[in-house]
Amino acid sequence: MATPTVSATRTARLVGALVPGRPAYQALADALRHAVADGRIAVGTRLPSERELTGALDVSRTTVTRAYAVLRESGYLASRRGSGSVATLPAASRRRGTGSLFPADPAEGVIDLTCAATRAPGGVIEAYERAVARLPEYLCGAGYLTLGVPELREVIAERYTRRGAPTSPDEILVTSGAVAGLGVVMRALLGRGDRVVVENPTYPNTVDALRRGAARLVPLAMDPDGWDVPEVVRTVAAAGARAAFLIPDFHNPTGALLGDDGRGRIARALRAAGTVPVVDETIAEVCLDDDAALPRPFAAHDAHTVSVGSSSKSHWGGLRTGWIRAPHAVLPGLVESRVTTDLGAPVLEQLVLLELMRASPGLTDERRTDLRASRDALVTGLRAHLPDLAFTVPAGGLSLWCELPEGVDATAVAIVAEDEGLLVASGPRFSVAGGLDRWVRLPYVLDPPTMTTATERLARAVATVAGGHGGGAAAARTARHRPSRPLVA
Amino acid sequence: MATPTVSATRTARLVGALVPGRPAYQALADALRHAVADGRIAVGTRLPSERELTGALDVSRTTVTRAYAVLRESGYLASRRGSGSVATLPAASRRRGTGSLFPADPAEGVIDLTCAATRAPGGVIEAYERAVARLPEYLCGAGYLTLGVPELREVIAERYTRRGAPTSPDEILVTSGAVAGLGVVMRALLGRGDRVVVENPTYPNTVDALRRGAARLVPLAMDPDGWDVPEVVRTVAAAGARAAFLIPDFHNPTGALLGDDGRGRIARALRAAGTVPVVDETIAEVCLDDDAALPRPFAAHDAHTVSVGSSSKSHWGGLRTGWIRAPHAVLPGLVESRVTTDLGAPVLEQLVLLELMRASPGLTDERRTDLRASRDALVTGLRAHLPDLAFTVPAGGLSLWCELPEGVDATAVAIVAEDEGLLVASGPRFSVAGGLDRWVRLPYVLDPPTMTTATERLARAVATVAGGHGGGAAAARTARHRPSRPLVA
Repeated sequence: MATPTVSATRTARLVGALVPGRPAYQALADALRHAVADGRIAVGTRLPSERELTGALDVSRTTVTRAYAVLRESGYLASRRGSGSVATLPAASRRRGTGSLFPADPAEGVIDLTCAATRAPGGVIEAYERAVARLPEYLCGAGYLTLGVPELREVIAERYTRRGAPTSPDEILVTSGAVAGLGVVMRALLGRGDRVVVENPTYPNTVDALRRGAARLVPLAMDPDGWDVPEVVRTVAAAGARAAFLIPDFHNPTGALLGDDGRGRIARALRAAGTVPVVDETIAEVCLDDDAALPRPFAAHDAHTVSVGSSSKSHWGGLRTGWIRAPHAVLPGLVESRVTTDLGAPVLEQLVLLELMRASPGLTDERRTDLRASRDALVTGLRAHLPDLAFTVPAGGLSLWCELPEGVDATAVAIVAEDEGLLVASGPRFSVAGGLDRWVRLPYVLDPPTMTTATERLARAVATVAGGHGGGAAAARTARHRPSRPLVA
Repeated sequence: MATPTVSATRTARLVGALVPGRPAYQALADALRHAVADGRIAVGTRLPSERELTGALDVSRTTVTRAYAVLRESGYLASRRGSGSVATLPAASRRRGTGSLFPADPAEGVIDLTCAATRAPGGVIEAYERAVARLPEYLCGAGYLTLGVPELREVIAERYTRRGAPTSPDEILVTSGAVAGLGVVMRALLGRGDRVVVENPTYPNTVDALRRGAARLVPLAMDPDGWDVPEVVRTVAAAGARAAFLIPDFHNPTGALLGDDGRGRIARALRAAGTVPVVDETIAEVCLDDDAALPRPFAAHDAHTVSVGSSSKSHWGGLRTGWIRAPHAVLPGLVESRVTTDLGAPVLEQLVLLELMRASPGLTDERRTDLRASRDALVTGLRAHLPDLAFTVPAGGLSLWCELPEGVDATAVAIVAEDEGLLVASGPRFSVAGGLDRWVRLPYVLDPPTMTTATERLARAVATVAGGHGGGAAAARTARHRPSRPLVA
């Protein structure tokens, strides 16, 4: 296989203006190192020759020579005979796995589409470096920030205000991600046996956590492309529930977006029933189409809303940082619940998120462009290889929610797909009340060629199951297969 | 007040050998910046003159001049008329508060002894920098490490093995701190109404979390200096509890250490009763006296033990990273519970802890020396100013557990002490079953002069309450005072 290359012009664009006040070769080496580290220059790519790069940048040849030498010394560049200078990483260059018990990390060549979350965006390493530079301000304290770094709470509040829900920083509690935030809310608001309205399908960990807390779940049936608002209003009125756990922004797994009118009507129904809206906004910033009419946050429609957000989809899951936005009256109870959950989010991750949100409150343009390309590759591949698959292309979010042809069982497809080198999550994983046997969720979080390959593998698995081959073996393996792989996103 | 100084000799010792392979002035500037950042050179300290430092280090005068210039540019050094070059921090130099709702951060000059946790030790900034350099290996993944970074799990397992409980890395689950770890264990092991044995007094957040989970608590009475083992054995046998939550290593708040013989006898009683030991080892590494006979981990006495550890006391609370060590049979249930709690600890903090534990698995010598000095200052101050106070000096841990003279109410003392500029936590905060009204916990986590001042303020508060002054006002304020300040450590 030919070594992939990056042109001198593109390299120069990635490098951008060199940071002034430092030796030029160091600034250039840093910029290139960051681009390799965060994947804007993929590992294994041949960099332009020193001469070419000198031509494309406004620097001397010596500067480029010294920068490349620094990169070689620090393990970010290797000289290969016949391939010139190739980008590398200092330690293992392969993706690090989850360390999961079950199963071992996907084997080489297996495409894992069970996780609707992406790699880190460009700029993350710089944000970590800037955050470390600010850390000394916090080292003389014990490191417990129960409510969160004040500046981060300000930036999060500003994002709500800008989106149409005026918010003050003291309505924000920083958490260790959205799942931790939802847990804090559950323990603060719910008692044993309380009725809770929850969309069906929905994010499985919310259902599991509600069940562990002994809530009684009232499923809210979703159409494949969103909410049947009159039906939601009827269910809410009949349920008399303590709380409703909703994902109105690019709902997981359907990708549907609830408009302002629907939000208003559902909010009024919840108020009338005395039901607290608990809104998971993890995916709210993952809008991919410029012309999508973005509704206001649910909290703008009902001041009693408790909103739970996360940086995992807008920025990176490895930060494990999220937040709760709650009315002043509710916050003290949440803080008490939080202190028995964990004592605070790590200081540094909060400073990193502060840096990232200041640079871009939501998705970066680069990330949006990449996700669109992956979504397009998935849609094109599915239409080519699986013309009988039904789905609505969502304006945002990270996955397609797809209906298999009549008589094709999604869990059987998921099991057979494993033998084809493809991991997918089938409908029943997202079901509150059983069923959804013909649905699969397909995240478009990997690069376009991989998405295309995934559709080919999925098509083979569907053909096998539809042709009656593998269904028996699949059924036999279902029981031990299903509960064994935690689905994180 | 005269400007404090650091001698050229001591500065040279703090700087150590300069990192080779980089310009000497940069290596020197980095070493000095780290020493200021992590407090080994306190902010406001005058550094040696360039001439003096050149004499003490084996470098040229130009190197020192350029290093000082770099520090000035980056905000770590300020030239003050008449004071020479003084250490500063680039942004706010004051301790950052907790962002707590309740109450506002302690006002200037108030001594906060409610938190038994320390500032970050030396070397933390370097560990963060090294961890950021390793982060690129993880950026191409989604960042969810359910079980934890494999190398960190190895290092944690090795620490158990070295302490006498042979452990394999796959028995370790990395968590977001000990409180999060205890929550994961509770949700995995306990059902509603399960009886749980718990020491009295103990760490309040464990009691609160158990109560939220609707456990029925069976208190295990502690003597002021430790466990009455025959009494513990009787209680365990009578309780027939599902689990026992114990802190055998420098117990919080008493500081007591349970010996191997006591561990063995209690472990046998728990086995006989079918009770799972859940052991909080947060403080296990905080041994201050060299000659203390360190017992083996509780898991070495009972293979069914679930151990919960943390880096908050051995290294720094700001990492918010801990772990669970559990038998293979129990781990899958813990992982399921963990996925509904949070999805994993942040990648970077795990890499930082890996760096710190490789350098020193437990407390550094520097940290041990500092804590001893603070403990000595507290003990000396108490003996001088409060000769009627009764306490046992523990061989480790972070606080003294002190009994006030007959008739002096600890909560009244805590309230009056606030007016003296001292915050302390009184006995009832640590009580499972009410009572402990004459006890206070005094952490020795601040510098010796502050500890001395704290004893003077405490003595005045005790005199006020003992003399009958302030007791009435105190009682009136108790109700609104007590529930309002979460106690994190």
